[in-house]
Amino acid sequence: VIHYSSPTSAGAECIDPNCTWVEQWVHRAGPREKIYFKPEEVKAAIVTCGGLCPGLNDVIRQIVITLEIYGVKNIVGIPFGYRGFSDKGLAEMPLSRKVVQNIHLSGGSLLGVSRGGPSVSDIVTSMEERGINMLFVLGGNGTHAGANAIHDECRQRKLKVAVVGVPKTIDNDILLMDKTFGFDTAVEEAQRAINSAYIEAHSAYHGIGVVKLMGRSSGFIAMQSSLASGQVDICLIPEVPFNLHGPHGVLRHLKYLIETKGSAVVCVAEGAGQNLVEKTNATDASGNIVLGDIGVRIQQETKKYFKEIGIPADVKYIDPTYMIRACRANASDGILCTVLGQNAVHGAFAGYSGITVGICNTHYVYFPIPEVISHPREVDPNS
Amino acid sequence: VIHYSSPTSAGAECIDPNCTWVEQWVHRAGPREKIYFKPEEVKAAIVTCGGLCPGLNDVIRQIVITLEIYGVKNIVGIPFGYRGFSDKGLAEMPLSRKVVQNIHLSGGSLLGVSRGGPSVSDIVTSMEERGINMLFVLGGNGTHAGANAIHDECRQRKLKVAVVGVPKTIDNDILLMDKTFGFDTAVEEAQRAINSAYIEAHSAYHGIGVVKLMGRSSGFIAMQSSLASGQVDICLIPEVPFNLHGPHGVLRHLKYLIETKGSAVVCVAEGAGQNLVEKTNATDASGNIVLGDIGVRIQQETKKYFKEIGIPADVKYIDPTYMIRACRANASDGILCTVLGQNAVHGAFAGYSGITVGICNTHYVYFPIPEVISHPREVDPNS
Amino acid sequence: VIHYSSPTSAGAECIDPNCTWVEQWVHRAGPREKIYFKPEEVKAAIVTCGGLCPGLNDVIRQIVITLEIYGVKNIVGIPFGYRGFSDKGLAEMPLSRKVVQNIHLSGGSLLGVSRGGPSVSDIVTSMEERGINMLFVLGGNGTHAGANAIHDECRQRKLKVAVVGVPKTIDNDILLMDKTFGFDTAVEEAQRAINSAYIEAHSAYHGIGVVKLMGRSSGFIAMQSSLASGQVDICLIPEVPFNLHGPHGVLRHLKYLIETKGSAVVCVAEGAGQNLVEKTNATDASGNIVLGDIGVRIQQETKKYFKEIGIPADVKYIDPTYMIRACRANASDGILCTVLGQNAVHGAFAGYSGITVGICNTHYVYFPIPEVISHPREVDPNS
Amino acid sequence: VIHYSSPTSAGAECIDPNCTWVEQWVHRAGPREKIYFKPEEVKAAIVTCGGLCPGLNDVIRQIVITLEIYGVKNIVGIPFGYRGFSDKGLAEMPLSRKVVQNIHLSGGSLLGVSRGGPSVSDIVTSMEERGINMLFVLGGNGTHAGANAIHDECRQRKLKVAVVGVPKTIDNDILLMDKTFGFDTAVEEAQRAINSAYIEAHSAYHGIGVVKLMGRSSGFIAMQSSLASGQVDICLIPEVPFNLHGPHGVLRHLKYLIETKGSAVVCVAEGAGQNLVEKTNATDASGNIVLGDIGVRIQQETKKYFKEIGIPADVKYIDPTYMIRACRANASDGILCTVLGQNAVHGAFAGYSGITVGICNTHYVYFPIPEVISHPREVDPNS
Repeated sequence: VIHYSSPTSAGAECIDPNCTWVEQWVHRAGPREKIYFKPEEVKAAIVTCGGLCPGLNDVIRQIVITLEIYGVKNIVGIPFGYRGFSDKGLAEMPLSRKVVQNIHLSGGSLLGVSRGGPSVSDIVTSMEERGINMLFVLGGNGTHAGANAIHDECRQRKLKVAVVGVPKTIDNDILLMDKTFGFDTAVEEAQRAINSAYIEAHSAYHGIGVVKLMGRSSGFIAMQSSLASGQVDICLIPEVPFNLHGPHGVLRHLKYLIETKGSAVVCVAEGAGQNLVEKTNATDASGNIVLGDIGVRIQQETKKYFKEIGIPADVKYIDPTYMIRACRANASDGILCTVLGQNAVHGAFAGYSGITVGICNTHYVYFPIPEVISHPREVDPNS
Repeated sequence: VIHYSSPTSAGAECIDPNCTWVEQWVHRAGPREKIYFKPEEVKAAIVTCGGLCPGLNDVIRQIVITLEIYGVKNIVGIPFGYRGFSDKGLAEMPLSRKVVQNIHLSGGSLLGVSRGGPSVSDIVTSMEERGINMLFVLGGNGTHAGANAIHDECRQRKLKVAVVGVPKTIDNDILLMDKTFGFDTAVEEAQRAINSAYIEAHSAYHGIGVVKLMGRSSGFIAMQSSLASGQVDICLIPEVPFNLHGPHGVLRHLKYLIETKGSAVVCVAEGAGQNLVEKTNATDASGNIVLGDIGVRIQQETKKYFKEIGIPADVKYIDPTYMIRACRANASDGILCTVLGQNAVHGAFAGYSGITVGICNTHYVYFPIPEVISHPREVDPNS
Repeated sequence: VIHYSSPTSAGAECIDPNCTWVEQWVHRAGPREKIYFKPEEVKAAIVTCGGLCPGLNDVIRQIVITLEIYGVKNIVGIPFGYRGFSDKGLAEMPLSRKVVQNIHLSGGSLLGVSRGGPSVSDIVTSMEERGINMLFVLGGNGTHAGANAIHDECRQRKLKVAVVGVPKTIDNDILLMDKTFGFDTAVEEAQRAINSAYIEAHSAYHGIGVVKLMGRSSGFIAMQSSLASGQVDICLIPEVPFNLHGPHGVLRHLKYLIETKGSAVVCVAEGAGQNLVEKTNATDASGNIVLGDIGVRIQQETKKYFKEIGIPADVKYIDPTYMIRACRANASDGILCTVLGQNAVHGAFAGYSGITVGICNTHYVYFPIPEVISHPREVDPNS
Repeated sequence: VIHYSSPTSAGAECIDPNCTWVEQWVHRAGPREKIYFKPEEVKAAIVTCGGLCPGLNDVIRQIVITLEIYGVKNIVGIPFGYRGFSDKGLAEMPLSRKVVQNIHLSGGSLLGVSRGGPSVSDIVTSMEERGINMLFVLGGNGTHAGANAIHDECRQRKLKVAVVGVPKTIDNDILLMDKTFGFDTAVEEAQRAINSAYIEAHSAYHGIGVVKLMGRSSGFIAMQSSLASGQVDICLIPEVPFNLHGPHGVLRHLKYLIETKGSAVVCVAEGAGQNLVEKTNATDASGNIVLGDIGVRIQQETKKYFKEIGIPADVKYIDPTYMIRACRANASDGILCTVLGQNAVHGAFAGYSGITVGICNTHYVYFPIPEVISHPREVDPNS
């Protein structure tokens, strides 16, 4: 048991009354000597929420395989996120090793994803009706908040249910966690888009390639992708404010690059420079603010600027987001997903609920959910 | 010599006065017994015009290698299309086997591309000053019209210059030609985008993936990519008119697909449905009409339609154009480019001018340029 | 109906007594106005024999989809080649669009392959017992000879069965056919191995990379792969005899390359230089002679030679065969497989039996099986 | 400065007499406030030794770029490992940002590699003649031992030379280091071979696929590749002894797998089971023992075993070693190489010599060379 400096007042618990687990602590992940559930009494459900992220199928697959190793026979997938708990037209998907054997070879989610869904109360009622006593929730901050609320509701209804999260954020922006699954694949796949932008920029007369990558509130993907590529001249991330215009603006620097190198590549995280785009004031079904499109904005302003200063410039804009999200996990993420999936099952079998699994300072651990969802992790601009 | 049914009145000629070549005919490509030029007197120039297309570097490479085999020492690249003939700031790039050895391993054009450029008269004057007597022009219809005009101007000035084109159109829309380089690679790379759209659509609740592919006036890429993928429900091409709204409209069919299959994938060629988008009335520097964006239009109308009929739908739009154009050629295109590059040099050495090389009914041939540029080749909707 | 110059005396027939089909002719493939079978009375079986080849799953998929479009409900896969007809432990696999929807996304064969199997008489008896009246056979020359014998046996037993082949040879060595499926993918994937050999050779002091590719009796893969790569110095194929030793031998030329370029890449087809390796006198279960390993032989002789002449040389040998065979089909092969699969079903429904489908001079046609299996197609060394 | 528990008596030093650096310590890597060398007086050389490893070009590139940022103009590559110091026919390769800009996009080493070379004394004499005062050595254990000896010799000759190593071992078997460059790429690329073996095994009747991966004395690649793939049944590594025959032998388990699953995939590290192959007693030019081929051995014994017990089995053997080694670095390794290259230059500029750079417990550090080369790091079989 590792005791971190910032203990939490969160409601994670072990539903095994004999367990000496301390709720506020972060615990080393792995199999426990004593397990709380009898495998033959378990009905386990898996649900995937939010947007796509490489590795969802790997985690689903490993949860199913590990549950089968424990001896669980009754495993189901809830289709299309929390929506699957309430939509009568959507049937549970029976899961087994045979079903999941090769699903990690393609991207997406076998179970389907969606945002939003029914109320926590309705979800728990549905779980009671279905007899689910183990719930694995793959999703981001909003989904984890939901998972924690489901756990609380179960506790209040005195249901012996283990609710275990697996953090899914391609942005790698979960507090305390070294790395979340899908991130490594995203950085790898982003190379393709950056290289295309580089080739378009380099092959054009005064070519400027602009690539928009994922990263709502943190610029890890944009930053690491730029670093890996060795082909990016300007990298813009949410953590570091910038101006387009003015003496220290991006456009002035682009002019300098065109004059000296003849071409330039810009990589921008979707959440960067939100002060420069019109507020949309809209939110999606997950409660995320709909961002203004900084990529399109930069493209348009760049074209306008070079026209105004009378220098020809050939601007090409690439948004590879969906092509990255839909990829299958690479080997590194495949391993991460495998270990996360195993540990999610170990935690559930020990009776832990309201927890999520992660890798922290190279160790796999269980976090109380509230510990990791208070705000997003960010790039330290000074490092 | 193959005599095709549609002889041409075009101005292709052999500059060798002893040659019995018939100008209006299409000739089998390949080395000739008698060559017109002495290798030590040749200064060959290569120029690449228009947009990027996989295989440009393969053709450049093979032209250089074949010229060296003929014994030519003086080979240069004209940077950034025809512009390189007039822009004093752009220096000729000396080319040799050493320089081009591995350029086919990356996409783009070693020489750079651009649209537009100086007048034909200025280009020919620049060629005279530089002492260029062999010009290889890689480009599309507009570029070939330019090449033919250069050839005519040389003839009028009584310059012994061989002007040879290599048709570059990723759309595969050149009249009489079985296939142009880059097309096969484009269809291959488009699979990635279509598969992403399929996975996004399939993993979402009522997911609809829309992919826009290249194809200004012909739908070969969209059609073949859809066929190869096995994942496209609706394929829209310029040759076949369609409506979005109404009983036989695309939207009604999407509703049917969502209701029966739960998801749908649409693949649309950029030139399809131009009656459905606002006319831009603009042209680019190559003289091409700037198309209205049918992909974005379909995306928006689809969202609107499903909102109106009260059925949730999750629409994802992917435009992989620049990521496809910037690819390196695949093996099949690599072979095509190799043979085209060799034949371009054979033709030039025989003294042919105003010709372009191509593959027609499985044979490599020389076409008089006017023969192939009158209008674009199209998909036969009835086959 | 196309009448080719070499009519055949073969036993292909149309089992529809009203059909005016001429048995010896090659016929244009495609749907027929009159179909012989009633869809509801059809039980169709698919069997894949021999070694793996990219595209097997694409053909299986398209046969199933086309059969369903015709209205056939009863479709089965025979597991592991002809063996599946006799091995009681191997159950028929029910096939439907749902089962085959995504099988083309991975390599191999959904049904499994094997060599050899029971006698023709036993196969036909098994077919009778199972009620199979349409048999689709994917395989090479030996398999097609079997298919033809099954067709003959059915005719003798007066069974109304359509036996239709789809030629499967990654070597692209089927007589009269422009291209067989899997070949294009093989050439594409071979680039990876050749590039590795090039990099190993180029990065080593006096590096020599040797790549062995498929091609038992014809060198199409080795030749086209070498051409596409632009990285091969010596390409050895079965059609062109060569010596290792002596003044015109491969080793002398390698010495020249090492002295002048510092490195060299050799690409050799597996069937090349069989006079230089020990005869194995063995045959596999398909009746193919087990070839001596010319790749290993060249590697060993090269090491020995350079040791003897006192010049250091660093020889690396790559055999990518299984990694190429197991690939999924690329887009070009995907399209070919789709059309072949469709035409196989069209032919069967018309009542044709003892035929195989192929592409000849850019047209899709039906061949009488004996027409195409007399001997392998070869590279013309003089072209 | 991090002080590790196992201080070393090694000879790393800072050649700056004013530096308070403690030789036995492991130091945090990064730029120093005071630099020892004046950039205009530096002649830096880079040398790559041993076998290929993905990322060599990335490290070369970053060293050159970082040296240029420090203001160094005189940078050279020593061709083909230490051999380049003595072979008069091999010229130094001048390096600059322009030369290295895109070298990371292809595999191999721009400078070439080789094993062995001249004596340490000859190397240092050559360095004196060339005026080299910064030497960057990329290589494995043997190469690092050489680098340390060069450093010692320089110290004895009172030459102010900084000798800095960058550990290159695709096996990831360097003591104390979390990860070495190339490893992540190797695991990624190995997926291709494992998947091929899986498809071959799965598509064959009683198919068994055997893949041999790198790993002379540690099984990290084999183990992680197996884990990532989810397709390997048996993974054999040097750290865990095993038998082929007998009740707990590999063959008995293969029989069980064939009987229950119908197919099996084995992944074996090249250094595994060396007790089961004939000792070769040979060493290569780097002093490494030439291993007996355990992959071929397993293939042969498996065939023999199944023949003896009368069960058919179809064994396919894949050795992707050279195809993995020759790959370009993936994004993750690209980032690692970038930081290692930067830190190597920072260390050299600070005057440190006899050190090597690495990542230890997520921190980039400088190690005294002897600290890391005493023996290989191994997989802990109990974790």
